[in-house]
Amino acid sequence: MLTKKGAATRHRIVTAAAAEIRERGVNATTLDDICRRSGTGKSQLFHYFPDGKEQLLIAVAQWEADQVIEDQQPYLGRLTSWEAWGQWRDTVIERYRRQGTNCALGVLITEVGRHTPAGQAITRQLLEKWQHEVRLGIEEMQRGGLMSRGVDARRASGALIAAIQGGVTILMSTGSAEHLESALDLCLDHLRAGAPAAA
Amino acid sequence: MLTKKGAATRHRIVTAAAAEIRERGVNATTLDDICRRSGTGKSQLFHYFPDGKEQLLIAVAQWEADQVIEDQQPYLGRLTSWEAWGQWRDTVIERYRRQGTNCALGVLITEVGRHTPAGQAITRQLLEKWQHEVRLGIEEMQRGGLMSRGVDARRASGALIAAIQGGVTILMSTGSAEHLESALDLCLDHLRAGAPAAA
Repeated sequence: MLTKKGAATRHRIVTAAAAEIRERGVNATTLDDICRRSGTGKSQLFHYFPDGKEQLLIAVAQWEADQVIEDQQPYLGRLTSWEAWGQWRDTVIERYRRQGTNCALGVLITEVGRHTPAGQAITRQLLEKWQHEVRLGIEEMQRGGLMSRGVDARRASGALIAAIQGGVTILMSTGSAEHLESALDLCLDHLRAGAPAAA
Repeated sequence: MLTKKGAATRHRIVTAAAAEIRERGVNATTLDDICRRSGTGKSQLFHYFPDGKEQLLIAVAQWEADQVIEDQQPYLGRLTSWEAWGQWRDTVIERYRRQGTNCALGVLITEVGRHTPAGQAITRQLLEKWQHEVRLGIEEMQRGGLMSRGVDARRASGALIAAIQGGVTILMSTGSAEHLESALDLCLDHLRAGAPAAA
């Protein structure tokens, strides 16, 4: 367990590493760069990351995964009206349009190893957390009488996450957000069609 | 332009390379292995692929991309009834369930270079062809009065391709086809809801 000060130092190292990697790429970033940017010494860095760069990269990948969720707030966390779903939709598309073909998390997961336990855990936890938030939104809408109880919250939230994942993958290969928009909109249209007012 | 015999030899080399790579991985496969398996000599191989392994890998990636479409036939090419859409859906899910976390095309595209012109062209053409086939199916259903003309064939086909892409990406990371099924089913439910009989 880190002290408050320890946690702050560790966080400063991780965010400095994330910023360096976003700017210069993962291979060009050295531990010296990260120490310089975070204002910490090498021995401090190895105190928090005794296994060195690899361990630090896992922490940065984790941080980037947290940012994916963070960038969708406050909307993702309170999908309690159709207006909120619309704002969330716009936020997601805007975020990935801005990101374009340069996915910081993707680069790090590839570096950590997509099929290593650490890489898989980060991906899985992100997908689970993301889907969980969407699912809570669907259930909240159903409780409020704004969405049909005929919608299967588990399956619909899984479909939404897959639609976003696929749209982003295509965006990263083509540079266009068209598929992302179409997929997200079709899912939302489907949920709206289950809105009691529209039935 | 290749002669008929030349095209057959080139095809034999490409399919032998594809089989070797599927079995042993791209790095462990040598040109000698490919010559042995295809029953061709090195000089013949270099006649068709003067730039060597890299050029051959691009041809193999192209072949694997063609297989993605091929594996969905005959259903993908004749989406003219709801029954055919259902059979296509089952075929897609079964194909990717069988493939699991081992995507031959993905490995090859990574090897060729996801961001190289050759890698991008293969990915783009596959997505375009796939979406085009789905779009033709939607338009055919609309012409036959089986699907509402309110469905935007371009956007709906793009959404379907993104949903499959996302579901497969998640399957490759988790090993489960649940997201793929949910995403594909939500899209198909949405298309069916636009069926005049259901309106």
